[in-house]
Parts: sequence; structure tokens; C-alpha cells
Amino acid sequence: MKNTLYLLSALLCSTLTIVAQRPPSISSPDVHPDHSITFRYYSRTAKKVTMNGEFLTAPVAMTKDTSGIWSVTVPPVKPDIYPYSFSVDSVQLADPNNTYVFANERFKRSIVDVPGDQPLIHSLQNVAHGKISYRYYKSATLGQTRPLLIYTPPGFNPNSKTKYPVLYLIHGGSDTEETWTKVGRANFIADNLIAQGKAKPMLIVMPYGNVRPAPMSDFTKDMVNDIIQFMQTNYPVIADSRYRAVAGFSVGGGQTLNIGLTNPDKFAYVCAYAPYTATDEFKKNFTDWNPNAEQMNKQLAAFTISVGTDDFLYEPVKQNIAMFKGKNLKLDTLIVPGGHTWMNCRLYFANTLQQLFK
Amino acid sequence: MKNTLYLLSALLCSTLTIVAQRPPSISSPDVHPDHSITFRYYSRTAKKVTMNGEFLTAPVAMTKDTSGIWSVTVPPVKPDIYPYSFSVDSVQLADPNNTYVFANERFKRSIVDVPGDQPLIHSLQNVAHGKISYRYYKSATLGQTRPLLIYTPPGFNPNSKTKYPVLYLIHGGSDTEETWTKVGRANFIADNLIAQGKAKPMLIVMPYGNVRPAPMSDFTKDMVNDIIQFMQTNYPVIADSRYRAVAGFSVGGGQTLNIGLTNPDKFAYVCAYAPYTATDEFKKNFTDWNPNAEQMNKQLAAFTISVGTDDFLYEPVKQNIAMFKGKNLKLDTLIVPGGHTWMNCRLYFANTLQQLFK
Repeated sequence: MKNTLYLLSALLCSTLTIVAQRPPSISSPDVHPDHSITFRYYSRTAKKVTMNGEFLTAPVAMTKDTSGIWSVTVPPVKPDIYPYSFSVDSVQLADPNNTYVFANERFKRSIVDVPGDQPLIHSLQNVAHGKISYRYYKSATLGQTRPLLIYTPPGFNPNSKTKYPVLYLIHGGSDTEETWTKVGRANFIADNLIAQGKAKPMLIVMPYGNVRPAPMSDFTKDMVNDIIQFMQTNYPVIADSRYRAVAGFSVGGGQTLNIGLTNPDKFAYVCAYAPYTATDEFKKNFTDWNPNAEQMNKQLAAFTISVGTDDFLYEPVKQNIAMFKGKNLKLDTLIVPGGHTWMNCRLYFANTLQQLFK
Repeated sequence: MKNTLYLLSALLCSTLTIVAQRPPSISSPDVHPDHSITFRYYSRTAKKVTMNGEFLTAPVAMTKDTSGIWSVTVPPVKPDIYPYSFSVDSVQLADPNNTYVFANERFKRSIVDVPGDQPLIHSLQNVAHGKISYRYYKSATLGQTRPLLIYTPPGFNPNSKTKYPVLYLIHGGSDTEETWTKVGRANFIADNLIAQGKAKPMLIVMPYGNVRPAPMSDFTKDMVNDIIQFMQTNYPVIADSRYRAVAGFSVGGGQTLNIGLTNPDKFAYVCAYAPYTATDEFKKNFTDWNPNAEQMNKQLAAFTISVGTDDFLYEPVKQNIAMFKGKNLKLDTLIVPGGHTWMNCRLYFANTLQQLFK
């Protein structure tokens, strides 16, 4: 009955030409109580199917049963949210039976959520929930109407006298404005830390950081001129640098440094996660840079760079840390195990939220 | 330079193990000014790559160039938004280079937006935009915290004296709470029709209609008991059946009939799009049904069923239309060319919006 229903509902969502290609519905991934995970994929014709995930160091083979369902069960993994994908006769694809797709412009992977025995900081818990609003703003800089996600905390009232601090939060290089919520779970992390009294209620603005074919530096202008203005026009925000933060991951971490450190009068908090800095904008801003460190150290309430020791950007990040320290800037670092992953990124973000606006 | 940047940004968003599998970034789909479309896919090893889309009657072959990029250009298609996918040596997958994925639980396809020479009703236009809020509500019926998307119209103010009518809008069988915005573009259609004065400002609530493993009829209870209550508690809504509508597509169309027609004291507008009705709940509700037609015709401001003549549910939908008319219910029908598609669904929805709350 259940399978019949699945098949019927699959049938209902497409034209008949495409239905003919559609596999039967199967459950994948299945996360077991001991944190092992079973992945499944249906193909009667494939010769080799493997699964790769960011909890593995190499792809694992899947095996086919008599009904054409390929599967593999991996041993217990550390509770977290991981990207994974299948390779079917060398074709990489997202898990067709998993709703949760990594929001990205350049690849399609799925995400699997392995819950902790105790609820993890990014999990949906029984606390008051903020909301995420999908909005559009006009960028005079870029001559476009562009998308924007805005987290408002539980109890947010746009008309109350309460005004809020704002964190501007930027995704990685080929991510989208949805990656910080869909993969980073920024909203649940904020809900939980606010409920625990560990983070201040704040607005979190998640713009779309890719401005191609415009030069990357135009995003700095867009942020400083258009996005901040949109927020000040449409939300009860505190228009004071002490209540404004910028953070971002990877390419967004580089953008964070460019935006924040060239505008210390506008952002008192600058938090870069595994920043990618091999850009013309970074070179222009920070080669032969001669900041007034004393003044900047007063303006910046926190300047933090986070990175994992297995991150492939670990070396350039260390060099940048040394460079900034060499300019006598007060810089906190969070250096932890792990790679250039969203697992690490959520950790950096949870750390940031507990520092902001205090 | 551009390609270098693409490669770098692709590189930055994953671990190195996965990067090794990653193809070079290419542009796909490219929609040309004459409405022809070029699709591209990279593989040096594939033997056969085809593309299928809902603007085609059969898959078309793609051809490989010397750099391993497969492509096909299809002749001009009627401007609309279409789902499509690739088949690579018989493996069906979404376009890796296209950000826009069809929100669905059971397949992964991409969507391509072919703009009209004049802006189509579902396009992002230069009008005031409403917002979509991603929220969570507690369902006492289902014992779960469940997701919900809520469209609020331009100028919406939760604290003003203005109270709003509400449309409850349900997705298809294997879709998600995001399908009505991501594929249906319900928000842009509402923005544009409100801007043109053709639709009343309203709230649009898009719940997640799948309640498995609970019986499907539990969604009716969830809607009537939990979702309406959540809206009345959290939004300035008019708590009167004349200002409450329910609509849905496919399985959601069947849910619409079950919800609306068994609660005509709660919903004055019942709008089913290609409803799927081969369910226990529908059978229980409408076999040997003996409604008080006179009373229901007074309660229902509009009862509409829409379907395409090529829809594979056309025959059962026609039979249900005859069944409801045989009960002397006032029923409007919108019967148009086209199949069981979201292209048709957007058309039905735009028609509904212009009828509601007038």
C-alpha cells in the first residue's frame, strides 16, 4: 500500500514520457539509531555505483540486490550534517530520493542529517523559532533586483520600539543565498543559541554574493551601499557600526575581509571563515596596506579568522593571520581540526553568534 | 579569467576528494533571444547523453565536442518555465550547472525559465514585492513541528488594523512546501496580479501536505485544526469563511476537495487543479455523498476544478466534475490544452487569484 501510494504520487507529478524513466521510490538515506547510515539507489542497468560523502576519505562501493536496488551501510559516523553524492558508472549525481539538496550553482549533492544523542546546536529543537524571509532588493550598484534571505528572531516585531543588531552573512563561492540556511542551518543555530541565552536576538541577512560578470569588488559596494540601506529602510535596525557585523565562508570569507576591514567605521565585527583571498580585490586592499591599527582596534569589537587544520586553505589563511597581526591588528583566531567543509563552517558560525553585540 | 574564477570557486566549496570528480564549469541552460535553448553537460567518458524536458515529446540526443562538453540546442519554445533533466548513459540527473532544482522528494530535475517578449505573469517584474516567510508550526494532530511557507503581500504590516484573507495552497504528491514558490512562482504571480489590481492583497499559506506514515486524511485535520489556528494566532487574518480559500494541485487538488467540501463552513473558495482522487479519503467522503446543495451553494463563493485535456487525469477529473454537478453543486470548470504540468498549474493558479475574495 505504501509503495503503491509512493508510485502513484511519483506518477502524478510529471508527464508520462518522463514517468517511464522513473525508478521506484525507495528510502534513502536511512540514518540508524547507532549513527550508521544506509544509502540506496535504484538501477537495473548500472555496472558500478559508489557513494561518497564528507564523512568518508574515499568513495565506498554499493551492491545491487535482485530487485535492482543498490545499497551500502556505512559504520556509525559522528553526528553532523554531511554532503554526499552517488557516482553511477562515473556519473555523479544527488540522491534522487532525498529531498535535501545542497544549494549550489556548480554541483548537485544531497545532505544527510545524523542527529546527536543529545540535540546538536543546528537541530530543530522545541524552542521558539525565528523566521526566514525571502525578499528582493534593488541594487543600484549592480542595476539588478537581487534576492536576499533575512532571519528575524523569535518575537520579532517590525513595529516595536526595539531595534536590532544585524549580521550580514555571506556564502561560499559557488553557493547561493540559500546555502547558509539549507546547509548551514543558520536559522536553527540562532534559534537555539538565543533560546539558551548565549546569543543576542539579531537579524541575519544572507545576500547572494556572486556578482558575475561584474568584478567581485562590486559586491563590496553592493553590500555597503545597497544592502545596508535596504535593511535600514525596511527593518528596525540599529544604524551604528557597533551593532553591525559581517561574516562569511570561503570566497564569502574573503569578501568579509574586504568589506569589513575597508569599512571599520561601518562594521565592528568582522568574522572570516576559511577565507579565500587569492583575488584582485584582496590584493589591491591588503598589499602594502598601512592601516591605522590603533584606530581600527578601537573600531573593531571583534576581528576573528577561523579555519580547520585540514582545510586546503590552511596555509594561505595562516599567512593572512600573520599579515594582519603584523599590522598590529587585534585578531582572534579559531583553529580547529577539520577541512574546508560546512561542518566546520557551522562551528565557526555558532562561535561567532556567541560573541556578537555583547 | 572567467573560467579560472569558476574553477577556483568550484574548488573552494568542497573537500579535495570530491573536487577530483568535479567537471569544469560550463553555462547551462543558455536561453537565447529567439527562445531557443542550449543545454550543456560535461563528460569525457559518457557514451550517450540525452536531454528531456516538458517542452518536448521525446528526449533529444546531445553531441560531444573535443573538450568533452555535450550540448544540444532546441528550437524556440513557447515562453514558460519547464522542468528538464539529462540522461547520461541511462542515468537520469538534474543539470549540475543549473542552480534551479525542482523541489521534490522523489526525483531531481532542473527548471529552465524562457522569458516572454512581454513579461509573463510569473516573472520577476518591476513591481512591489511581497515576501515569503519560512516558518514552523506545531501540529497537535500529527505530533510534529512542521514547515510552512507564508506569502505576505507588498506593504503587509502585521500590526496594522488591516486584516487579510488567506489562501491555503497545497503542492502535488511528491512535491514539498517549496514547490509552489520554486516551481509555481506563486509569489511573483501574486505580486504581479496585485500590482495590476487584478488580485486582492492576501496571505498565501503553503504547507507541507505529505503526512506519511499517517493516513492522508490526517492532513485534512492538520489543516483545519492546526494550520488555520497557527495563522489566526500569528497573523492579522479575517477569521471568516468568506475570506478563506483552499487550492491545490494533483494529490493536493484531491486534498483540496476533501478539505474544502467537507468544511464549507470554513472555506468559501475551493479550487482544485487536476485533482488526484483515487484515495480512501475521497472515496469515504464522496461515495454515496448526499450534500445539502442549496446550503453549500450559498456557502461556496466559488468552487472550481481546472484540468488540461492532455492531463492523464483528464478522464477521472471529468467524471468527478459530472459527479459534483450531479449533486446540484454550482461548479465552474477551467478546461484548457496541456497536461499534468506546472505550466498548466501556474495558469490555473493565476485564474484563481483573480476570482478570490471579490
